[in-house]
Amino acid sequence: MEPEDLVCYGFDASGLEAHPAAVVWPQNVSDVVKIMNFAYANGVPVIPRGAGTGMTGGAIPLGSAIVISFERMNRILDVDRENLTVLVEPGVINGKLQRELQRHQLFFPPDPTSMNFCTIGGNVAENAGGPRAVKYGVTRDYVIGLEAVLPDGKVINTGKKTAKGVVGYDLTSLLTGSEGTLAVITKIRLKTLPLPEDVITLLVLFRELEQSGTAVRDIISHGIVPRTLEFLDREAINAVENYKPVGLPRDVAAMLLIELDGAPSVINREAEQVYDICGRLGGDAVMAEDSAARNKLWESRRALSPALYHLSPSKINEDIVVPRSRIPDMLKILSRLSEETGIKIVNFGHAGDGNIHVNLMIDRNNREEYGKARKLVK
Amino acid sequence: MEPEDLVCYGFDASGLEAHPAAVVWPQNVSDVVKIMNFAYANGVPVIPRGAGTGMTGGAIPLGSAIVISFERMNRILDVDRENLTVLVEPGVINGKLQRELQRHQLFFPPDPTSMNFCTIGGNVAENAGGPRAVKYGVTRDYVIGLEAVLPDGKVINTGKKTAKGVVGYDLTSLLTGSEGTLAVITKIRLKTLPLPEDVITLLVLFRELEQSGTAVRDIISHGIVPRTLEFLDREAINAVENYKPVGLPRDVAAMLLIELDGAPSVINREAEQVYDICGRLGGDAVMAEDSAARNKLWESRRALSPALYHLSPSKINEDIVVPRSRIPDMLKILSRLSEETGIKIVNFGHAGDGNIHVNLMIDRNNREEYGKARKLVK
Repeated sequence: MEPEDLVCYGFDASGLEAHPAAVVWPQNVSDVVKIMNFAYANGVPVIPRGAGTGMTGGAIPLGSAIVISFERMNRILDVDRENLTVLVEPGVINGKLQRELQRHQLFFPPDPTSMNFCTIGGNVAENAGGPRAVKYGVTRDYVIGLEAVLPDGKVINTGKKTAKGVVGYDLTSLLTGSEGTLAVITKIRLKTLPLPEDVITLLVLFRELEQSGTAVRDIISHGIVPRTLEFLDREAINAVENYKPVGLPRDVAAMLLIELDGAPSVINREAEQVYDICGRLGGDAVMAEDSAARNKLWESRRALSPALYHLSPSKINEDIVVPRSRIPDMLKILSRLSEETGIKIVNFGHAGDGNIHVNLMIDRNNREEYGKARKLVK
Repeated sequence: MEPEDLVCYGFDASGLEAHPAAVVWPQNVSDVVKIMNFAYANGVPVIPRGAGTGMTGGAIPLGSAIVISFERMNRILDVDRENLTVLVEPGVINGKLQRELQRHQLFFPPDPTSMNFCTIGGNVAENAGGPRAVKYGVTRDYVIGLEAVLPDGKVINTGKKTAKGVVGYDLTSLLTGSEGTLAVITKIRLKTLPLPEDVITLLVLFRELEQSGTAVRDIISHGIVPRTLEFLDREAINAVENYKPVGLPRDVAAMLLIELDGAPSVINREAEQVYDICGRLGGDAVMAEDSAARNKLWESRRALSPALYHLSPSKINEDIVVPRSRIPDMLKILSRLSEETGIKIVNFGHAGDGNIHVNLMIDRNNREEYGKARKLVK
């Protein structure tokens, strides 16, 4: 392998970078055991790596680590239709698994925005969420068993094949989200759900920022749990339209991308309630007419992260979570801070979870701006 | 306190017993801290105790332990309707919480069979399941944050107030189900769901044991996920009828207690599909006409455990879990074993999870029978 090949395995979507000592591509668990034995004997750190789409630096090979890339362990091993589970290797791409399960009328809800690239192994290591978390929870809620290799090369199996299993410490949940710090995961059994019968996608446009937050609160407290409740403010909409235009209006204060799934009779009624709630708050709702229109909306949402990166490569992205009921207040505070400091702030996120990505669009090389922004983050 | 008062805190529903050194009734977290400091300094074990309804001996004060009873920490502290969460003290009775949440149109799914007595603290410590686990999962799926006191008296807070929160090791899940071995839980924040709109309860009677298992498999693989799928074999039905008659027919091979919840239009259609699936397998289905009829059926199911205990106080109860698809095979094997050994075996359980309680109705004082049964269990 040429030294320049190593460079590709030294960074991820966090923008951080480090130089790996080596990259290995195991094909099965015994390869991983050999790697771990070697690394343990020689005191070399290891970094498991999926697709490098993580925003938090989980795949950065600090300390001249050996990168264990799971590109070649990417098989779907067993779709168990009768027990509603699926067994996969860590390198399976999330979107590919979604499509394969759909063929079996099954549904794996976690849908990180990078789902067309990211791997299930990475999703498990980082306990990834996604727009659908508001209704369906995060990756951890679907991991029912793991095969993993401990630092000394010992292989462990956690969890169970059945939906129920309540005995003992929950090592499956402990490993999920542990970011590769406890063990290297080599097999994953996931719970799946029956594929929802139908989906309705609504785009709601607001003239007032705060009222979009109020709508989120009111929808949930009405007992409606949409499968997504995505929020984009005016700056976010414009960033997408500049980067990959889909025809979103640029003059609104905010938009919500709301998706309902379930039986047609139920979601039609829920959609009407959402229309009512948003309408009372001055929101304009339109329904995506077919799956093409729906996909276009979601592609625009997925383009947002690259669009913002494009706009300001050195922006600061803070991922904050507040109780849903506090979103309107938070949006007010963020507008005020932006006005006071003169720093452009772009906000978007999974509003149904109270999870907002706050992007401070600064140039890190501008010392004064950077200083102000750091202070603001604190 | 008189010595005889201690006796009540020495046993639980497991039938095991030990003598506690003392019993304490803290009223708040600082009381618990004081207890833990004292116990730590003096090397005395502590055993947190809810209502003592556990079947696995989690509340038995081995080693002359101090029993920390949560009877006086039984308040519902905060029902957060907007964020669909509730904050409780460990001593709250599960059934009481269920009723209180219902008043707010909220729903906490975990429903251990002992729900009218058991406490949420005990449910969390044991990661309790219940009939509804087939659709809604177990207690761990609803615990989003904990306040707990470590052995050295340090108070920790795990988890979060929001539905999402994916950073760091999942200490909430680690403590849930740890049976009091890691820390003493003093506050619990639970996720709740909007109350389902409607419920349909079906009783299905089968002339052939194996076909009841096939029905379970077929319902699930049809994409229908009932909120309960309870199984009782002929012996179990007769035990209930002898103990607390509700008019179940004694001559069937098995029955399923199936409950569907959700929007009326959806569950009516699902109920028809269940009728069809069961009908093809020779099952006879009847619907509970109102909530009184439904409650009667559930009271009979809940009476089963005491009924069997009454019948054979020294029975051996093994709680086994197999993949749902293997239930028919397992029932066949159990019948054969019963015939071969001459030991009466009563089976019932949460068939939707593949979870069957296998009760070997033996007299432990009969050496030969006990020996055979122990061998069988292995």
